Amino acid sequence: MKPISILSPGGLVAMTLAGAVTAALAADPLPSWNDGLAKQTIVGFVGKVTREGTPDFVPVPERVATFDNDGTLWPEQPIYFQMLFALDRVKALAPQHPEWKDKEPFASLLKGDMNSALAGGVKAMLEIVVTTHAGMTTGEFEQIVKDWMGTARHPRFKRPYTDLAYQPMLDLLAYLRANGFKTFIVSGGGVEFMRPWTEKVYGVPPEQVVGSSSKTKFGLRDGKPALIRLPELDFIDDKSGKPVGINAHIGRRPIAAFGNSDGDREMLEWTQAGGGARLMMLVHHDDAQREWAYGADSRIGTFSDALMSEAKQNGWTVISMKNDWKRIFAFEE
Amino acid sequence: MKPISILSPGGLVAMTLAGAVTAALAADPLPSWNDGLAKQTIVGFVGKVTREGTPDFVPVPERVATFDNDGTLWPEQPIYFQMLFALDRVKALAPQHPEWKDKEPFASLLKGDMNSALAGGVKAMLEIVVTTHAGMTTGEFEQIVKDWMGTARHPRFKRPYTDLAYQPMLDLLAYLRANGFKTFIVSGGGVEFMRPWTEKVYGVPPEQVVGSSSKTKFGLRDGKPALIRLPELDFIDDKSGKPVGINAHIGRRPIAAFGNSDGDREMLEWTQAGGGARLMMLVHHDDAQREWAYGADSRIGTFSDALMSEAKQNGWTVISMKNDWKRIFAFEE
Repeated sequence: MKPISILSPGGLVAMTLAGAVTAALAADPLPSWNDGLAKQTIVGFVGKVTREGTPDFVPVPERVATFDNDGTLWPEQPIYFQMLFALDRVKALAPQHPEWKDKEPFASLLKGDMNSALAGGVKAMLEIVVTTHAGMTTGEFEQIVKDWMGTARHPRFKRPYTDLAYQPMLDLLAYLRANGFKTFIVSGGGVEFMRPWTEKVYGVPPEQVVGSSSKTKFGLRDGKPALIRLPELDFIDDKSGKPVGINAHIGRRPIAAFGNSDGDREMLEWTQAGGGARLMMLVHHDDAQREWAYGADSRIGTFSDALMSEAKQNGWTVISMKNDWKRIFAFEE
Repeated sequence: MKPISILSPGGLVAMTLAGAVTAALAADPLPSWNDGLAKQTIVGFVGKVTREGTPDFVPVPERVATFDNDGTLWPEQPIYFQMLFALDRVKALAPQHPEWKDKEPFASLLKGDMNSALAGGVKAMLEIVVTTHAGMTTGEFEQIVKDWMGTARHPRFKRPYTDLAYQPMLDLLAYLRANGFKTFIVSGGGVEFMRPWTEKVYGVPPEQVVGSSSKTKFGLRDGKPALIRLPELDFIDDKSGKPVGINAHIGRRPIAAFGNSDGDREMLEWTQAGGGARLMMLVHHDDAQREWAYGADSRIGTFSDALMSEAKQNGWTVISMKNDWKRIFAFEE
């Protein structure tokens, strides 16, 4: 273990003044992780790619790490948080759309029947998202997202959604950045739904967020140049779309990739197919008590048996939330 | 003027050891620029947005500057360099495409008649580019670009194209970065044509390059996961596409934008439409001796009279290559 590697030069000076116990505590780069294979794998990988003069050394500009968001950096139950946002938008916009009373999936939603509304699967979800997220400028949409994040509460935890970032993943993001990595989000979620808060919550600036997107159009709004959101999908950043999105936005292949579901399979395959040391990890939701337990049969965040087999065969590390994470949320004590 | 602002803390220590004359020289942040309105405007803007506690202060993460490439960071005559690359690709690929002998624009090209080949305008150019840049993996294409950049020579200057970066713009990029700006390229050119060399030449890493793109498809090539380039345009990052591309990739509005032609109009309008201090500049090609002089009637890099009027009306600064630039290329002495 090379505890020094997470300290900046300034931190190094500070450390010489600290006692041995304090230093040992400060030196744990992943304090919310239990000791075990997952944590060892991360620390081993980072040690390897940052050790200059060795065959696995990777120069700083090439230290790219990509993270799925829903189910990897924060929960995705009872349903993707962006869907809960979209449902609130349907309610807010309903008075301007009397036709929704007779039109699915909106009619079921307005009756509070979420199961019928989402019976149409991904297609129904996308229709709701695309419809409710369009017509305004990008700036107006950003404000709507910020307002919602400030007031909405998660149905189970009764807290703002942004409180639900997984603390072990926040540790990991910080640890990688302290070791010269650039951390990116690569999510099936809407890029403009994430960007207003990822910098504050994850330390990931908007330009390092890759996601699904709607088309926008440049034009005038109230006489001023503006980008208007159109009710038309531009790109779906999921499954085989993830390597495509990574290449389009980042233009480098990641050396580390983190996901939690079948939607992340191709991102991990693409990461691994590069030469040199690579780290591929999947978060497994196996903690019904502190979070949720779900997998192969889940509607959201499917972790199929085929994915589990591929992980074993390819040497990807499966993170057990139950066993590998000392705590899940910052608000736990 | 705040010369200190371009020095790192390490540089500050070094400066206390240096004599006054050396310090004064080192302190010119834009040594390849003549004193004049353009240089004053840049230095004034940077001073304003970096002065903490003043109304124009902009926090570091929001200091986004975007640069057009062709005609702004390097030349675009006698034609876009990517077209010269594509023409070399047509020649290299011709033996595998006997049908090109009878098919325009390829037939004219192979006869060496560039004017006829490009009579079809942008559409003909795009067809040549899309056709010759497809079918290989993204990694293979990157290598082809690197090989070409290493061997091809500009017809007038007889030098590698990457030697032709405008030295005053390299000064400007470095000056902005030293003041906490993140510098992005936002070009109508192909993003994968630029990314292999922008880091080395401009100090702009691949993830900060926005451009036009072809579609890619994730699949297997020789049994390994790969991204295959398809002969289909994905996005044209020009004119009203520039604000769209900036929003899609960066997710923040620039506070400074630099262009040279009608294709950059919307990028500058979008930049200016944000609140607070903004810097909009256009490079004017008025130096036939050291570079080229062209403008309203040019086929490449049109700078229309309407654009000039808009620049005047909106307070955009027009950079005269002839008067504002002490030297144009690093190889000039």
